[in-house]
Amino acid sequence: MIPMNFLSADDKADYINTGTWSTKAIKEAQIQKKNYTVVASSEDKDFSYIPKDIQFSKDAGYVHMTSNNTIKGTQFQKFPDTNGVPIVCDMSSDIFSRPLDMEKFGLIYAGAQKNLGPSGTCMVIIRQDMLDMAEADLPSMLKYSTFVSKNSMYNTPPCFGIYTIDLVLKWIEEEMGGIEKMEEYNIKKADILYDFIDSGSFYRATAQKDSRSLMNVTFRLPDEDLEKQFVARAMENGFGGLKGHRSVGGCRASIYNAATMESINALVQFMESFAKENK
Amino acid sequence: MIPMNFLSADDKADYINTGTWSTKAIKEAQIQKKNYTVVASSEDKDFSYIPKDIQFSKDAGYVHMTSNNTIKGTQFQKFPDTNGVPIVCDMSSDIFSRPLDMEKFGLIYAGAQKNLGPSGTCMVIIRQDMLDMAEADLPSMLKYSTFVSKNSMYNTPPCFGIYTIDLVLKWIEEEMGGIEKMEEYNIKKADILYDFIDSGSFYRATAQKDSRSLMNVTFRLPDEDLEKQFVARAMENGFGGLKGHRSVGGCRASIYNAATMESINALVQFMESFAKENK
Repeated sequence: MIPMNFLSADDKADYINTGTWSTKAIKEAQIQKKNYTVVASSEDKDFSYIPKDIQFSKDAGYVHMTSNNTIKGTQFQKFPDTNGVPIVCDMSSDIFSRPLDMEKFGLIYAGAQKNLGPSGTCMVIIRQDMLDMAEADLPSMLKYSTFVSKNSMYNTPPCFGIYTIDLVLKWIEEEMGGIEKMEEYNIKKADILYDFIDSGSFYRATAQKDSRSLMNVTFRLPDEDLEKQFVARAMENGFGGLKGHRSVGGCRASIYNAATMESINALVQFMESFAKENK
Repeated sequence: MIPMNFLSADDKADYINTGTWSTKAIKEAQIQKKNYTVVASSEDKDFSYIPKDIQFSKDAGYVHMTSNNTIKGTQFQKFPDTNGVPIVCDMSSDIFSRPLDMEKFGLIYAGAQKNLGPSGTCMVIIRQDMLDMAEADLPSMLKYSTFVSKNSMYNTPPCFGIYTIDLVLKWIEEEMGGIEKMEEYNIKKADILYDFIDSGSFYRATAQKDSRSLMNVTFRLPDEDLEKQFVARAMENGFGGLKGHRSVGGCRASIYNAATMESINALVQFMESFAKENK
């Protein structure tokens, strides 16, 4: 929907490629034969880092990026200075994990299924001036203005998802103490895990230090056989989902907002004993 | 998505206009500047009937129609003979209410929220040859073939909705005795209500007899004041949602698959006593 709404024949956009999801976003601009430039990419090192010192185009309508890369375990720890060009950001996997400087963003979109609520709902935050930029003659369901003008009820909304998201937002505010506290908690959780991984040579984090994700901690073991054993033994001990995405292999601990400090500590304990047994 | 996928520059399509939802579908073909013909419309009589003896174009790629019109209370009691041209049908409000001759349809789409499950999920049944007809260079999420090739899991599917639909389908098969029995039950329910409405002069059904919906029974009272009182008194007695759609006024009883015979009988009883009191 982004290129469709904001890239008419005269417009151009900048894209940053930091992994699977940004690659997919770029592909959609390409399919629609839109005018775009990939201004930075970390594909040269298997997307293990977040590009820095990016030269943005001066006349771009927006800069597209993916804030957190679930599969490669990298994250924009801070957002680049785009010289005032609005950022359009896929935040599906780190929305509400930390406070944001909203001034930088023209549009934020996020699938619900990581930090928001059940799958099947997508949240969009859009700035008024972006809305005014959008193409006029698009199909109704593909125009952001349709949803805004009808208060997100142009079609029957996914009530169960929205209700659940309301509960999650209340939980962040009331139980976790707000978004700043949520970030502190997330940093603490990730630090425990990365510090443990860095403290020995058995596990090896795949993302560069300044690009590491607070949400997805990706790591390797000495060999693939050990990785298989690790995932299986972990499962026996109640730790699911530690297998890396099938496209990259390795291991991955997804520690979204819902993951507790207790679960991180328990995981570290398990990893410690697995390393000792298999050295 | 229908015109986008199936109406390239060389193609044309027929549309039947039977009310709000078909009007919206036609508008989307128009926005996209596609080649289409409205071959029949019941707009002349406020959409109170289903057009018959329709002359279809010989070279149309598909015929689009809405099988049940929730707002006007009409329904295709049988589907027209389109000379082999595949029907593309919006069945959002009567899917799984009756058996279908699947030979006639090229594509069926249905929002879940009436007869299937919670809102936020849409079911599509598509014939292989329709899939082959579709445009190739569309955005991935707007191409039916994307969903087919990935077994409906190109994106994270709405799991809660799909799980609930599975329960509903099991309920139709195991509790209601299958789709034929479901239809019998629906006919019985609607007959009770229409027969009662026709038996006196206080209530007046708005849809023509041969076009009446098994799902949405629309009717008027002698005047709008009485309609207001009726809706309010009904609510006090536990009958919600009897107000007609805001675009048409009047009253409407939506008796989807989930409505029980007991609820229909109770409603008739209430309507009977309200009529007596207000004659």
